[in-house]
Amino acid sequence: MASQHKTSAVPTAPSPEQRAQQRQILREGDRRHHIHPFTDHQALAQSGAFIAERASGSTLYGEGDLALLDAMAGLACVNVGYGRPELAQAASAAMRDLAYYHSFQAVTNPHAAALSARIAELAPGSLNRVFFANSGSEANETILKCVRAYWRLKGAPERQHIIARDYAYHGSTMLTTSLNGLPVMHQAFGLPMPGISHIEAPYWYRLGGDLDPEAYGRKAAAALKAKIMELGRDQVAAFIAEPIQVTSGVIMPPSSYWPEISAICKEEGILLIADEVVTGFGRTGHWFAQNHYGFEADFMTLAKGLTSGYMPLAAAVVADPIADLVLDQAAPFSMGSPHRAIPWPVRWPMKIW
Amino acid sequence: MASQHKTSAVPTAPSPEQRAQQRQILREGDRRHHIHPFTDHQALAQSGAFIAERASGSTLYGEGDLALLDAMAGLACVNVGYGRPELAQAASAAMRDLAYYHSFQAVTNPHAAALSARIAELAPGSLNRVFFANSGSEANETILKCVRAYWRLKGAPERQHIIARDYAYHGSTMLTTSLNGLPVMHQAFGLPMPGISHIEAPYWYRLGGDLDPEAYGRKAAAALKAKIMELGRDQVAAFIAEPIQVTSGVIMPPSSYWPEISAICKEEGILLIADEVVTGFGRTGHWFAQNHYGFEADFMTLAKGLTSGYMPLAAAVVADPIADLVLDQAAPFSMGSPHRAIPWPVRWPMKIW
Repeated sequence: MASQHKTSAVPTAPSPEQRAQQRQILREGDRRHHIHPFTDHQALAQSGAFIAERASGSTLYGEGDLALLDAMAGLACVNVGYGRPELAQAASAAMRDLAYYHSFQAVTNPHAAALSARIAELAPGSLNRVFFANSGSEANETILKCVRAYWRLKGAPERQHIIARDYAYHGSTMLTTSLNGLPVMHQAFGLPMPGISHIEAPYWYRLGGDLDPEAYGRKAAAALKAKIMELGRDQVAAFIAEPIQVTSGVIMPPSSYWPEISAICKEEGILLIADEVVTGFGRTGHWFAQNHYGFEADFMTLAKGLTSGYMPLAAAVVADPIADLVLDQAAPFSMGSPHRAIPWPVRWPMKIW
Repeated sequence: MASQHKTSAVPTAPSPEQRAQQRQILREGDRRHHIHPFTDHQALAQSGAFIAERASGSTLYGEGDLALLDAMAGLACVNVGYGRPELAQAASAAMRDLAYYHSFQAVTNPHAAALSARIAELAPGSLNRVFFANSGSEANETILKCVRAYWRLKGAPERQHIIARDYAYHGSTMLTTSLNGLPVMHQAFGLPMPGISHIEAPYWYRLGGDLDPEAYGRKAAAALKAKIMELGRDQVAAFIAEPIQVTSGVIMPPSSYWPEISAICKEEGILLIADEVVTGFGRTGHWFAQNHYGFEADFMTLAKGLTSGYMPLAAAVVADPIADLVLDQAAPFSMGSPHRAIPWPVRWPMKIW
């Protein structure tokens, strides 16, 4: 009693023992309550999760002092590196001013207006119209809705079939999972949904045989033409593909591939969707991989690098001639439910004025 | 020359004329490049968009001095009001420390671990397992994947049919749009997808006829039983519904409705999904509308109020018996592609230690 001191009101940093105890509580909460994607939960229940605690630049820190080189940049999304104070500050300022407002009807906000214009400025050719969403999956869903609306307005509602590729990755909704070219993602859920076909990926390393890369690139592109013929041109709505595929190794197509694919789509009147979620924002040394490979799609999907993962944001970018038809032509869009795609609001952690 | 002064290095606030000019530039960028959801773009091209600039509490400010009471709380999502500095500060701190990391395999982070445990603590009954996503649409897609996996593991892969209701709103992906009970959302896209039925909403005000509310509530619930009989019980996977519907007025069901629906689902062995995106986080005076109406679902969808719109975040909450089967039982989930639902990372603007 005699030697009792008042406790200081200034909070002290937790001791190593307290931190270890906090970690144990978190790990137990995680084990009981957190469902992880792509995870063997039986193994997880045994081992408990590794707790990633902070990151800076390209270094991830976990479990106290462990420092790891994050060579994956998260899941290929932290293009500008972790812990950048200017992004934290921009987000904080935007949250104080206007963290959220929707863009239904004729409402916009400075962030959405400025960012849509900036994306159009950077995007190839006539990819000038921007619809915001929260993830690549959602942006692809929006694009697929737009594709359906397009063909209906063109008087060809039977054109609904989508062609994708082996090893593709386009998202995690039921429909975008169906586009994925990885059967292991389908089995548990009775997918794919009907109306989707997959063609060969331009995977010269495994499938090139005796052909040189350029000859193989043309052969792989010809698989698209063959599939269109098989299905019947008047049944096919669009071809969706990542300029470089990344879910089963990094599949770099021969340089003959994309110009050939682009020519086939134009020739056959098939809409071309470039899913640039991974390849966008500098990953090929250009803003977009379409610049690198020299082609221009009708739709472009953006996510990941758009915010470097600091906030969920994605964009469906639409070429002018398609947007003009789908948005500006009367028919279903001006009646009651105008262009109804994704009702998510637009946000962007950048205070511009 | 004689009277020239050095320009001050301190930036000055823009003049009213400069602000008006900035607004004009933003409005023009928006008109040319920003695709708005639910919008008549022909009218928008004429009028130009209204620019929402900032908000505080329940007041939205736009176009300079115009102050508006935001009685809608955004789109029913800003439960705690706009401009709260403590949320801006928490987001900023989290972005400096760890804006992003995925939860694939056995990795977690303090925010995801703590938040999943907190949601489980608040959620009704055995709704104890939490999968994070970026929007209500994505959370519903995850739940529908989980429903499919569940029936396949139960040896009933043919149970795929989903029953929803007239006036329902469950999202904007192709599948969740199909669940919506608003035909105007379907027409432009050739929806709904197959395998979905809609039953009467418990809309006593319009449909009650001569019945008192409680008698009508039981009648409206009986529509679920009739639909299950019509389709065949062994074809039906789940019933999805918002405890209170909000897209065509606010449809409050009579108090007899939910206990009766819950009893029918149990009796017929149909999974029950409560989409609490709008009703969650205090909107009924309880944490969740299930507490208000006295029932407990097998799945609960959360979004909006979960972050009050300060950041996109949603959750699919799964009851223990279902999670135990789907996550812990061997079969497809431990082989190669374990529980594959949504690969989005978990983030939360709350620094907890």
